[in-house]
Amino acid sequence: MNFVLFSTLVFYSVVVILKILWGITGKNLALFSDGLDSLKNVFTLSLSIFFLQISSQGRDLTHHWGHKKYDSFGALVIGIFQIFISGVSGTYIIFRFNQVPSSSSIVTSFVSFLLMIFVVLSLFFVSHRLKSESIRAELLHEATDLIQTFFVFISTFISVNYIGFINSAFALIIAAVLLFNGILTVWRAEKFLLDWAPPRNVMQKIENILSESDVSVRDIKASLSSSNTLRLEITLQVDAQTPIFEAHQIAHSVEDKIISELSKMGVKVENCSVHVEPLGAHTTKDDK
Amino acid sequence: MNFVLFSTLVFYSVVVILKILWGITGKNLALFSDGLDSLKNVFTLSLSIFFLQISSQGRDLTHHWGHKKYDSFGALVIGIFQIFISGVSGTYIIFRFNQVPSSSSIVTSFVSFLLMIFVVLSLFFVSHRLKSESIRAELLHEATDLIQTFFVFISTFISVNYIGFINSAFALIIAAVLLFNGILTVWRAEKFLLDWAPPRNVMQKIENILSESDVSVRDIKASLSSSNTLRLEITLQVDAQTPIFEAHQIAHSVEDKIISELSKMGVKVENCSVHVEPLGAHTTKDDK
Ligand SMILES: [Zn+2]
Ligand SMILES: [Zn+2]
Ligand SMILES: [Zn+2]
Ligand SMILES: [Zn+2]
Repeated sequence: MNFVLFSTLVFYSVVVILKILWGITGKNLALFSDGLDSLKNVFTLSLSIFFLQISSQGRDLTHHWGHKKYDSFGALVIGIFQIFISGVSGTYIIFRFNQVPSSSSIVTSFVSFLLMIFVVLSLFFVSHRLKSESIRAELLHEATDLIQTFFVFISTFISVNYIGFINSAFALIIAAVLLFNGILTVWRAEKFLLDWAPPRNVMQKIENILSESDVSVRDIKASLSSSNTLRLEITLQVDAQTPIFEAHQIAHSVEDKIISELSKMGVKVENCSVHVEPLGAHTTKDDK
Repeated sequence: MNFVLFSTLVFYSVVVILKILWGITGKNLALFSDGLDSLKNVFTLSLSIFFLQISSQGRDLTHHWGHKKYDSFGALVIGIFQIFISGVSGTYIIFRFNQVPSSSSIVTSFVSFLLMIFVVLSLFFVSHRLKSESIRAELLHEATDLIQTFFVFISTFISVNYIGFINSAFALIIAAVLLFNGILTVWRAEKFLLDWAPPRNVMQKIENILSESDVSVRDIKASLSSSNTLRLEITLQVDAQTPIFEAHQIAHSVEDKIISELSKMGVKVENCSVHVEPLGAHTTKDDK
């Protein structure tokens, strides 16, 4: 792993621990809740690097169709972690609801905000150097986290000086958003883990490419293994007397065409298999 | 849904609500924790019926390879729910640790145990009539739940009369087991959602069947979509001049043989596709 990225993660982890500790000792529920949210972010950053490496691996003895789905599985694990800590922080907040933060907590929540600025700047620096898409996407998330920590400070200030329950209420909102996002993450991963067919426009594109080729198509099966990766199985029909070497050439030309046309749409074909069978051997889609 | 099963689920739900309420009002942490565990069971029973119906569906417009994986997804959702409520109950128990149940709680925990006997008997009756494998498997789980509720009663009795913290400690154990089982459930579902290859003995069986047939095998790809359902892709090589109708016959005889041989092992082949290509067209496994 890149050294700057590693240092950033260590620094971020320290900030997370400070937020959670200051949240508990300063009776600052919003800071505590925000700290657990940041913990999830550190977890996400570390895991996404790990799962990115796995998902880029091709075929091996245990995964004959490659590892692309590990991208979604990484997201799933993070979503589950998120749901778990939302349960912990939600219960904690409900127990301690209406408690007013100590006045020193105004300082610690402001320091937390300042530390978060360093974290975001440092991540910005890393993403600029690494040119990593996934870290850049994560960065946007970190920026909203920065705003959240700023509002923790604001809610603490209001609670200490004016309206007591604001800090608790904000803490509960953070926990609720955490739960909601966790469920959403699991929901999104489901699409790729359960072999959903690609969206209509992609299916139509495949059908168009095939109809341009001078072949008879009996069946198309497709599924997404990540947001831009496709598995494809196409069954063609040719004259019964066609020699296998000719059928094989037709299959390859169709495969090549589909792969190149779809890549123009930003869709990568991960596994493409083209079958050729004699004309009329099967008629319906479900017929084997 | 079957009426008796539905009634049982409603009755079970009432028992769950009673356990949780009596747990909170009677300061009985173990009963509370046990109640949340039972909530998961009601959830499991209801969801498994729902997901069983989905997973038995064949191919449709959005799932070209069928819905078998929804079995695992159902298990995954239950695992996530389990992890969430273990977070809630764990936090709750830690907050209230060492609290001694009220003496009336000895009665309510015993009544809970009696009600659980009715639940288990009723489920036994349902499973006997429905002859459903999945409900029968769930029944075994319910029996251990019955024992657990009995120990809740015992721990309450000990806490009220002798050693105060026993009830809290037992509550924490229930929550920890819930978390552990949740993680295990997610871990098990991962195998089927990420297209793991089947175990060695199944792969060897497939290789043996193919080597008995008089064909040249270039590649075998396989993955599990449930504990006993397999997806299979086999690439054969035949003489380049073989007409496609002959190649197609070879492919089907190989497919039929594999499906019938594997079904003897209790393995169902969900999607089998056999490719035939000219001899020497590709040499390595990864070569397209
Ligand atoms: Zn692997
Ligand atoms: Zn056929
Ligand atoms: Zn469907
Ligand atoms: Zn080829």
